[in-house]
Amino acid sequence: MPKEIRINAFVTFAPSHLSPGLWKHPRDKSLQYHTLAYWTELAQIAERGLYDALFWADGISTYSVYGNSHAPAIRGALQFPRLDPLLLVSAMAQVTTHLGFAVTSSTTYEPPYQFARRMSTLDHLTGGRVGWNIVTSFGSTGTKAVGLGDARGHDERYDVADEYMDLLYKLWEGSWEDGAAVRDRAGQVFADPGKVHEIHHDGKYFQMEGVHYSEPSPQRTPLLYQAGASARGKDFAAKHAECVFISAPSRKVIRDTVDDTRRRVAEQGRDPASVLFFMLLTVIVGRTEEEARAKLADIEQHVSLEGALALFSRWTGVDLAGKDIDAPFTYERSEAMQSTIVGFTIADPDRVWTIGELARHNAIGGKGPVLVGSPEQVADAMQAWIEDTGVDGFNLSYTIMPDSHRDFVDLVVPELQRRGVYKTAYRPGTLREKLYGAGRALLGDEHVAASHRTREAETV
Amino acid sequence: MPKEIRINAFVTFAPSHLSPGLWKHPRDKSLQYHTLAYWTELAQIAERGLYDALFWADGISTYSVYGNSHAPAIRGALQFPRLDPLLLVSAMAQVTTHLGFAVTSSTTYEPPYQFARRMSTLDHLTGGRVGWNIVTSFGSTGTKAVGLGDARGHDERYDVADEYMDLLYKLWEGSWEDGAAVRDRAGQVFADPGKVHEIHHDGKYFQMEGVHYSEPSPQRTPLLYQAGASARGKDFAAKHAECVFISAPSRKVIRDTVDDTRRRVAEQGRDPASVLFFMLLTVIVGRTEEEARAKLADIEQHVSLEGALALFSRWTGVDLAGKDIDAPFTYERSEAMQSTIVGFTIADPDRVWTIGELARHNAIGGKGPVLVGSPEQVADAMQAWIEDTGVDGFNLSYTIMPDSHRDFVDLVVPELQRRGVYKTAYRPGTLREKLYGAGRALLGDEHVAASHRTREAETV
Repeated sequence: MPKEIRINAFVTFAPSHLSPGLWKHPRDKSLQYHTLAYWTELAQIAERGLYDALFWADGISTYSVYGNSHAPAIRGALQFPRLDPLLLVSAMAQVTTHLGFAVTSSTTYEPPYQFARRMSTLDHLTGGRVGWNIVTSFGSTGTKAVGLGDARGHDERYDVADEYMDLLYKLWEGSWEDGAAVRDRAGQVFADPGKVHEIHHDGKYFQMEGVHYSEPSPQRTPLLYQAGASARGKDFAAKHAECVFISAPSRKVIRDTVDDTRRRVAEQGRDPASVLFFMLLTVIVGRTEEEARAKLADIEQHVSLEGALALFSRWTGVDLAGKDIDAPFTYERSEAMQSTIVGFTIADPDRVWTIGELARHNAIGGKGPVLVGSPEQVADAMQAWIEDTGVDGFNLSYTIMPDSHRDFVDLVVPELQRRGVYKTAYRPGTLREKLYGAGRALLGDEHVAASHRTREAETV
Repeated sequence: MPKEIRINAFVTFAPSHLSPGLWKHPRDKSLQYHTLAYWTELAQIAERGLYDALFWADGISTYSVYGNSHAPAIRGALQFPRLDPLLLVSAMAQVTTHLGFAVTSSTTYEPPYQFARRMSTLDHLTGGRVGWNIVTSFGSTGTKAVGLGDARGHDERYDVADEYMDLLYKLWEGSWEDGAAVRDRAGQVFADPGKVHEIHHDGKYFQMEGVHYSEPSPQRTPLLYQAGASARGKDFAAKHAECVFISAPSRKVIRDTVDDTRRRVAEQGRDPASVLFFMLLTVIVGRTEEEARAKLADIEQHVSLEGALALFSRWTGVDLAGKDIDAPFTYERSEAMQSTIVGFTIADPDRVWTIGELARHNAIGGKGPVLVGSPEQVADAMQAWIEDTGVDGFNLSYTIMPDSHRDFVDLVVPELQRRGVYKTAYRPGTLREKLYGAGRALLGDEHVAASHRTREAETV
């Protein structure tokens, strides 16, 4: 079989994600984002379409760069309000059997000991179907909300994250030996105290003493996603990530990122092919090209160009309010401007964007490409993107919820299956096994997490 | 109708709670505590029995007072391992319609901004069926695990908790005005920026700046439970709690606590009758007294007296390992000994306990009474406890899971209904409305939370 295409549904727990304004569309259900029914319907569509996972972006920064005001974000529901995706997972697991759940959580906002227990809890409850998208969070709105004052600098955030990962690996991989939880009724032993180890971590950013409060879950460490785009971010991904998410508008930028990151993965002593790359993609598909174009025309009537500019201002740190839309977008690179984002959005050497072009491009599906066409046209284009960039699959953003995903499942998935590039059934096992095969429930020995399996543990 | 009896199922997300050793019982399902099926079955039994809520105790301290070792707790699964109850709620909500969910979370361990978003998320997803059992957490195992070093003193923990509550009320009650989330498709306004307020909190223990990241949920502030037993704890409960949980072995101790707390509630300018008291209770019921006694005899063969002593050592701070079981239990009151717990466990002036008596008493259902008998006998006894103590209902602990609750629902609930002291259907609405009546979805104006509805908010 040719390379199998991987699909995640890319969402956020908010009334709007990457296509601002479409919550106003009469067929869109996004205003029901705060109900269980909205999410269980999506999860069941995704599982019917054999998606690998639902992938929730998350963040707690209100967007205020554009016009130096929160008002556009509040008025336009720009990824706001936004609720905690971890709390959706058990209900989604309840209505599905195989679908994975990748949740975003920040190494800046969440204390590591409690977070470790949360992810172990979810891995137990889902039977090993949980993943974690590691983010370090940029900007100071979020850090001020959680009482940390101004945000740390870009590279220091990654230093914090590296130590955070060490601490988590100690808990997930090192605190309980295999076979510690004997669960022996007759012998009256739930767990063998000699195999449950207290972790002592006394680092630059974190301190802790204690045992992991969860017995080992099916995957121990959840499947690790990351989206680092800067050099420091790519090194972090190369060390930790099993799946890398890229959002960029051009083949060249994506190809370069895939190649550069795989090179760094190899430098870490890991198999470069073992890291799976997902690129952001939005698909508007009809039974015919004409039908798809009609859907696009309808959608374009409801998108918010101001919302797109406000999102872009947030990502870049450049206030685009009141700017001439026909002027080329120019900027001075600075610490305040986030290299992780800017790198992908505008550092495409192939072209210069006017502000109006940026707004129109980003108004549907954010920074990623948008495919509009018949199932055959969409499948052709998806295969071409994979061929040209080396990615393994797509984080599929939506325009109309849940129609976008229902259309993709009903129209594009069968076409991909006909071409032999998409699974016709889930593999058994955990999320990691579904991606990597039987016997791969845990991180491999070549991953840095494995080094914490016995070291730095002491008998209680 | 005579006073209606309220029932919560009292549980924890662990293989064992208040009856140590019974996870070894051949009919007990507690070893499946880490699966969704275990919890959905219990939730459905509880809703069939018209329980008000599932009430999860929680904590992250390993118990090491007994014998100065974690080993007994690890070997015997003494409330260990224990997973995060908040993550169960959405799946429980998915399989029920009316049942409430009271989760324990600690003002010491969980950062307030993130916690506020979590509870709002759950209140949205459950349609207003969520409650919070406020604990301050004692002992240093937990604080060391979360990187806080040694625990704060008893009264300072409550000072922290008071400020924590202030901050939460500002977010839940003050950040979004009523009507702020207009959700107006035609007008292209999701929320009115003039009615969404940034909170500025600069306190002794917490700082934050930001808007609450959730639009108002059905209850805004979740239903507030508390279990303060010290003078400082009772004052905290009198100020904040809507439901108070008491675990104690004697009528006199419970009666005194109810009376004293209601007096303090009145001092806060609140209606003393508006606070509902729940006492810990374990019921072993059969179709006949003989059948119930046979169940008790069977259970007694599997309980762990060592486990009971280890739990008791944790609660009191007194190491009972290796002590003569026929000796009277004596202690010197100290800061290390937790007055919140000790007050209820042993400060009963009516009797002196030997260590063996304590072990046997606490081995089934912890510190609360155990009722064994026919449905009529159990109902008689429950009514007598209410009559004698002034409580409004019971936090019902289990021996065998889920048989204990199935027995109670099948045998005791119909008997209570026949007597006209138990509801025959749920009231509509949120958890707060189910307890207090229609129109009571939000905390009343007399509650301190109401004072944060407009004060200390600034327009963004």
